Parts: sequence; C-alpha cells; structure tokens
Amino acid sequence: MSEVDFKQANERYGANFGDNGKLSIPPSKHLAVVTCMDARLKPEEFLGLNLGEAHIIRNAGGLAKESLRSIIISQRLLGTRDILVIHHSDCGMLTFTDEQLRSKVISAHPGNAAVSEAVNSLQFGPFPDLDASVKDDVAFLKDHPLILKEGNITGWVYEVETGRIREVV
Amino acid sequence: MSEVDFKQANERYGANFGDNGKLSIPPSKHLAVVTCMDARLKPEEFLGLNLGEAHIIRNAGGLAKESLRSIIISQRLLGTRDILVIHHSDCGMLTFTDEQLRSKVISAHPGNAAVSEAVNSLQFGPFPDLDASVKDDVAFLKDHPLILKEGNITGWVYEVETGRIREVV
Repeated sequence: MSEVDFKQANERYGANFGDNGKLSIPPSKHLAVVTCMDARLKPEEFLGLNLGEAHIIRNAGGLAKESLRSIIISQRLLGTRDILVIHHSDCGMLTFTDEQLRSKVISAHPGNAAVSEAVNSLQFGPFPDLDASVKDDVAFLKDHPLILKEGNITGWVYEVETGRIREVV
Repeated sequence: MSEVDFKQANERYGANFGDNGKLSIPPSKHLAVVTCMDARLKPEEFLGLNLGEAHIIRNAGGLAKESLRSIIISQRLLGTRDILVIHHSDCGMLTFTDEQLRSKVISAHPGNAAVSEAVNSLQFGPFPDLDASVKDDVAFLKDHPLILKEGNITGWVYEVETGRIREVV
C-alpha cells in the first residue's frame, strides 16, 4: 500500500473530525471486544459501535489468553465490565498446526539457527473447531482470577459470508 | 451495553452486506496494522482502509512484542509485507507503572493469594515516552529474525485530539 494513499485518506478524516477530539479515555459502553485481526472484520461496524464506546482487542484468532493483559488494563484502569469474544467463520486459525507453520518458516530460511530457535519457541494457537474455540476462550476468562465477575462475558461467531453474528455461549 | 443494541445494529449491517461475503482471506493491500485498543481509535477509518484490505492487530498500547505471533501468521500464511505501528496521544499506557497497577488489583481483592500470584506474574508494558515507544517497537520488529525484511515497517502517532497521524520513524 502506498503511503500516499493512507496519508491522503487521513487528511480527509482529520478535516471532518468535528467534536471527536473531546472524547475521554474510558469507553462509554464499558465494553471490551476481543476478536480476530482478519481483514474482513470491522467489529465497530458490525456491532454498531461509535467512536469512544468500546475497547477493541484484535489478534490472530481473537485469542482471549493473549488478550489478558489488555483486558486487565481495560477493566481495572478504564472501567470496562462486559466482554464479547468474537471468532469468525473461514478463520486462518482453522487451517494449520504449530508444526506446519514452524516447518514453513524454517524452510524459508535454510540453515538459519536464529530463525529455527525463535520459531520453535513460539506457540501460534491454531484451533480445529470454531465454536469450541469460542467456548474455551469464554471459559478461560470466566475462570481467571484477574477478570472481574460483575460483567457479562459472552462468546460469538461472526460469519464473514453474511456479516451476521450468532451467539455461541 | 445492552445485547439488544448490538444485535439490532448487526441485523442492519447484515442486511446491507452486499458482495462483502465474497472477499478472500489474504489482505489485498498486503498490510498489517499494529495499534492500540483505545475506544477513540477506528484505524480502518483514519487510514481509509476498506473491508478486506489489511490485518488490524490491537492491544493495550499497540505493543509490537505482543503482536509477534499475529504478525508471523499474517506474513507467512496470508501474504502481508508492510507493517504500520501506530501508538496514540493521551494513551492509558503513559499513566501508570507495573507496580501501581499490581497494587491496585491486589488491593481490590484483599487476602486473595490467587490474585496476587497471577498479577505479580504479569508485565503490563506501560511506556513513559510516546515517540520512544513507537521507535522501540519498530526497532524490535526490524531486528526480529522472524519478521520478513522485504516490506516497509514504519512507526506513527495518531493524535486523538485531531484525528491525524504523524510519522515518527
């Protein structure tokens, strides 16, 4: 992507910013959303969230465990309570295993010991079953001693084919 | 936030989904964006990114180190090359230290050993200097053996007061 493209887009965005610069840090809906980095997801749009309303945490798969640090900061310092965990259909995380990805990376850098060592030390968190991954992540958060108990923690699947969400747990 | 609100918003989104369901997994701009979970950021909007164009990775602060797993999956399995690291003004990560947050959490659960043990095992990654945090994160990615060298890795600050980005490195 050309830097010119997004710089020009940002110029237009800034020119129409209006009163958005007056929003304060704490999310006004007291909500944190954990979801995938997938390019086909715009969580604010498919949930109808306006600027300033919710924390949006995104990583490959929408893994709750990797989001723990962020959720603690979100709840303890910025007052969020409810959490939505949203994984999605056709997710890349359904398509590989740790061993397959490690082999692919190592093959791309033959004889590079630093690469082998680094990639073998990582776990990539793929999951074979979409709904089970949502249930597991919600259970992880509900059971974790550092997650506040007074909010609702729910789990969803976003369907990239239709733009619709369905509740899993 | 009421579930009714976002369920209704999602109904409207799904009803106007058009051809978006035909997008494929690899981001068409070959771009990954690493930024903060802050509720005042809509990175797709302030960068002018359409659905399907870029991976969006978000956590508290927009920390590159925590994004490593996601970036590797993004580059190796889904073909992205360029990376934008975007931190922002008025970030919560500028306002606390690990010790302060740990004390706050422990005080909220007096005598709870599971809480103390869990929170003392975590590092929350606050940073005292915004521009330095961007430079550090770009350097971390450029130096990392598992990050591909053929793309551009740049660092930016998004100004929540104006909606504008400025390049740091």
